Amino acid sequence: MAPVTERGEEMYALVERLYPLCRSITGDGVRATLDIVGEYIPLHVHEVPTGTQVLDWTVPQEWNIRDAYIADTAGNRVVDFAASSLHVLGYSVPVAKTMPLSELRAHLHTLPDHPSWVPYRTSYYKPDWGFCLTQETLDAMPDGEYEVRIDSTLADGHLTYAEHVVPGQVADEVIVSCHVCHPSLANDNMAGVAVATFLARALAEETPYYTYRFIFAPGTIGAITWLARNAERVERVKHGLVLACAGDPGALTYKQSRRGDAEIDRVLRHVLAASERPHRVVEFTPYGYDERQYCSPGFNLGVGSLTRTPYAGYPEYHTSADNLDFVSPEAMADTFAVCREAFAVLDRNRRYLNLSPYGEPQLGRRGLYDALGGRSDTKQAQMAMLWVLNLSDGEHSLLDVAERSGLPFDTVADAAGVLHEAGLIKT
Amino acid sequence: MAPVTERGEEMYALVERLYPLCRSITGDGVRATLDIVGEYIPLHVHEVPTGTQVLDWTVPQEWNIRDAYIADTAGNRVVDFAASSLHVLGYSVPVAKTMPLSELRAHLHTLPDHPSWVPYRTSYYKPDWGFCLTQETLDAMPDGEYEVRIDSTLADGHLTYAEHVVPGQVADEVIVSCHVCHPSLANDNMAGVAVATFLARALAEETPYYTYRFIFAPGTIGAITWLARNAERVERVKHGLVLACAGDPGALTYKQSRRGDAEIDRVLRHVLAASERPHRVVEFTPYGYDERQYCSPGFNLGVGSLTRTPYAGYPEYHTSADNLDFVSPEAMADTFAVCREAFAVLDRNRRYLNLSPYGEPQLGRRGLYDALGGRSDTKQAQMAMLWVLNLSDGEHSLLDVAERSGLPFDTVADAAGVLHEAGLIKT
Amino acid sequence: MAPVTERGEEMYALVERLYPLCRSITGDGVRATLDIVGEYIPLHVHEVPTGTQVLDWTVPQEWNIRDAYIADTAGNRVVDFAASSLHVLGYSVPVAKTMPLSELRAHLHTLPDHPSWVPYRTSYYKPDWGFCLTQETLDAMPDGEYEVRIDSTLADGHLTYAEHVVPGQVADEVIVSCHVCHPSLANDNMAGVAVATFLARALAEETPYYTYRFIFAPGTIGAITWLARNAERVERVKHGLVLACAGDPGALTYKQSRRGDAEIDRVLRHVLAASERPHRVVEFTPYGYDERQYCSPGFNLGVGSLTRTPYAGYPEYHTSADNLDFVSPEAMADTFAVCREAFAVLDRNRRYLNLSPYGEPQLGRRGLYDALGGRSDTKQAQMAMLWVLNLSDGEHSLLDVAERSGLPFDTVADAAGVLHEAGLIKT
Repeated sequence: MAPVTERGEEMYALVERLYPLCRSITGDGVRATLDIVGEYIPLHVHEVPTGTQVLDWTVPQEWNIRDAYIADTAGNRVVDFAASSLHVLGYSVPVAKTMPLSELRAHLHTLPDHPSWVPYRTSYYKPDWGFCLTQETLDAMPDGEYEVRIDSTLADGHLTYAEHVVPGQVADEVIVSCHVCHPSLANDNMAGVAVATFLARALAEETPYYTYRFIFAPGTIGAITWLARNAERVERVKHGLVLACAGDPGALTYKQSRRGDAEIDRVLRHVLAASERPHRVVEFTPYGYDERQYCSPGFNLGVGSLTRTPYAGYPEYHTSADNLDFVSPEAMADTFAVCREAFAVLDRNRRYLNLSPYGEPQLGRRGLYDALGGRSDTKQAQMAMLWVLNLSDGEHSLLDVAERSGLPFDTVADAAGVLHEAGLIKT
Repeated sequence: MAPVTERGEEMYALVERLYPLCRSITGDGVRATLDIVGEYIPLHVHEVPTGTQVLDWTVPQEWNIRDAYIADTAGNRVVDFAASSLHVLGYSVPVAKTMPLSELRAHLHTLPDHPSWVPYRTSYYKPDWGFCLTQETLDAMPDGEYEVRIDSTLADGHLTYAEHVVPGQVADEVIVSCHVCHPSLANDNMAGVAVATFLARALAEETPYYTYRFIFAPGTIGAITWLARNAERVERVKHGLVLACAGDPGALTYKQSRRGDAEIDRVLRHVLAASERPHRVVEFTPYGYDERQYCSPGFNLGVGSLTRTPYAGYPEYHTSADNLDFVSPEAMADTFAVCREAFAVLDRNRRYLNLSPYGEPQLGRRGLYDALGGRSDTKQAQMAMLWVLNLSDGEHSLLDVAERSGLPFDTVADAAGVLHEAGLIKT
Repeated sequence: MAPVTERGEEMYALVERLYPLCRSITGDGVRATLDIVGEYIPLHVHEVPTGTQVLDWTVPQEWNIRDAYIADTAGNRVVDFAASSLHVLGYSVPVAKTMPLSELRAHLHTLPDHPSWVPYRTSYYKPDWGFCLTQETLDAMPDGEYEVRIDSTLADGHLTYAEHVVPGQVADEVIVSCHVCHPSLANDNMAGVAVATFLARALAEETPYYTYRFIFAPGTIGAITWLARNAERVERVKHGLVLACAGDPGALTYKQSRRGDAEIDRVLRHVLAASERPHRVVEFTPYGYDERQYCSPGFNLGVGSLTRTPYAGYPEYHTSADNLDFVSPEAMADTFAVCREAFAVLDRNRRYLNLSPYGEPQLGRRGLYDALGGRSDTKQAQMAMLWVLNLSDGEHSLLDVAERSGLPFDTVADAAGVLHEAGLIKT
């Protein structure tokens, strides 16, 4: 477990660095985030100009913010953006006014049920401004005048996203996508960004079968922009995972692709079940993270979503309580491990054709079968060979063989390797 | 609930009027029945001559009866047709004899297990005569001579059935079929006739999507006659319901069509489950009511059967205990309500095509999406729009969307309406 | 039950005669076995020369053995082949040596967990020699010199197998295959041989629909040889059963064919379920008996395997405890009865076409339907006719009808016979 723990600690350290930045769907916060990730893995950063048409959408103006606060008449900052990037409504237009609390209230967002938490709110597509604060802070604010200041700009600029590619033996791709647009929320989604980053690093140490493409992009508009700009590449995307909420203490949840029987769905179901971890597998819904876009009916990609506690499934979701205490090195290491296992299965999952399909080939002659007959304890490796031979009719994958035989996938894949070497099966 | 109760009372009043008539598969009892129904909805009455070949069958001679009795030597009528139309074996040939009880017994039908009930028996296709009476009456009859008289005629004439059509927006049809051949039995099937009549009246107040055809015909031979005379129309029959036993106190039972996955089957299953009524859904069997004919393998129509307690499923079935006390306004109103809900779903159940299938269309721009982001309580109407967009690939109906999403069908259909109006989907 | 018991006793008597012989995959033990079976049913015996290429295999040299023993220095035979054919490793090369126990041990096979049982071991394809003995005998052998003698020959000769054919009304075949290569093991497989022999005798008393071919051949190499020499016949093999372990006290186990939905699979599932015997139905695995060869992907025949306790599923498996006490006349009679029932269903299972598929044909006119209407207790035979008519669309077999209706197969098949005679259905 030592290397896992070490990697867990490294991922957690990355989350710690990324957490304080004020991200949004555009702007310098995203750029700063990608700069840090770029210290771990090389990134290809794309800048897409405001106004660019992307599918049914248009790249919006770029939003940047320097300062924001609500101050009382004594000049004390009651709410201060410097304390947390959550305090300002995302994409707030600039404002500099003095107004009574009664008028200000319409711009204040709190969580009455969790009076000490700050909510996360945005208004990307309707010009608005506002502050998010604890209910306790609001309750303590006396009536009277307040100075309200948001020093932000909304101007033509760019939408920023990045890619990292691990070349494989084939051009067919697996995409791993995570959103990088949320401000100071740890589980949603700096934990996902950290797990993706370290997956990319681990894959680079080998030459995987598939080409793995990591996409770091703002939610919704970022995935839509990537899809709009990669129309021809989409045909090469055979499998994919949207990674989010990768560090909370809950059990893993795999949300299946829209297809429900895509290979990635079967692989994740198999790996999670075989691992005997507590976990949940849920049906696709057209809500959540960017699987919404990858699984829109026109694309209908084999892309599922792996989270721990899923989207909106925990009280800390989209609040200041989704902080560095809410995520752990152990949870991230566990998410990482399952992704690695899933990619390993995906990479070895082939369909073979038995070249000697009439009767069993004589394995003994080839040194692949016990010489002594009559014993009742046949070895697992031998059983795996018989299963691979029997089901290698071009219709069954090695995952089919593993599931039908009840044997571990690795045993089955190893048996296929031996048979392939002996010239008994071909791809 | 007031209007439902009022309609229930109206339906019950119709059953009260129809109940005493002596119906059979032909004859003036059927005509009188249709005359009364015709006071509620306009009927097109068909008269098909004796001897007409209909599929594998031939329209039989017409049977009419004026009087029938068994009298003792003192002239007292021990069994009297005037008291109940059940007392005579249906299609009895005329008889006027005096005979000892010992000889008469072979023509007497009783229910020893229910000694105070009169059974309902017929002999349509084998010339015979007989009386049905209570076991108590039979037990009280002393040995000796009895005068036996059945003043009936079996002669060339016609088979009578009727249709009522509610024109829809399309020529594709939904048939609602109920048998009108049983004499004084309330649940089987004057309750079904009453519910069908009021369904026709309710549908006429709107222009439904489908054209609804109500068929009031004698069992078996009537449905066969209708099918024989409507060979070309059958192709337009997309869905159908056989209505029977619509007024007893039992829970609703939907018997699926032979296909088992016809749209009507899915609709009824959905509506009954969504209504949270106690109910049963059962497989098709080639026995029961006229679904036997509509679902014969050559036609194989999408026609199911809705009853409360099903065919032969209650002790009162085909006895004098199936009387006006056995049916209730409440039960008929409940059957009526489920039919209405089912027709409403059927009428709105369309397949749409998402015109913007690559990624999600930007609903916010069109005023269809919350401006404020980040909240975890997304509205049901919004979820319904996302589901309709995601599944509108030409393969999924709105009922599919409702079932896969778990959202109410109406919410889904309303969302489809909004999206259709916004030009985002088409049929 | 008397005839069954008598047949059970006869089968047991056959097992008693066959049990002592020393069989292997070639040699005079197989010939002697087939000679005895040939006294019950005529056999066509095939002799295939050593060196013949059969699929991926080659017919090996023929093995024969006259004597074998381990004797102590006093000349006492500590282990003696004359006492049990299990004592010598199958296919042992000849040996005549004196050696210390320490050297001999590498050639001795025991069952430490069952110290009083002798294991069954072979070395067909790697030249070797050895003895099988009880652990108790081994423990009692003092260190010191032993005379070791195996008077066997391995020389060019033949592989022997036999066939018995019961001609049917059609050339399509059902094969019943059982292995005849195991030495003194009663359940595995002299019980299977006996049940097969008596099935052949019983079938010969009638003319079955299918042609039944019984194959008595050594395991693996025998089935492979049969398949290699019957390439064109294989297309006519529609169904099959591998019979083994037919006499132990356990419940019946049916192992499905590789297809899983072959007709033989459905028939055995149906017959076992309908019989209300305790039983198990298990999935195909590419291990066990000669279903491994018949169900190799190139052939993929509809061949299942019927056993009582399955392959390697009991401690006595492949040991001296699989003796005449382990099998019983009752168990063999029970296996026999299920095979008979299965063949009866298979032979009657046809697809019919309703010649009057539009509406129900008028059964009453043809004397096939109760004249008296209205009763709620419809006869099973009448229901079976309605079911056969309704499902005879060319897609449903009589077994489908039986399963969907819940009626006994025989009732359904009898109804089909009546309808066929009436000209209402055709094959």
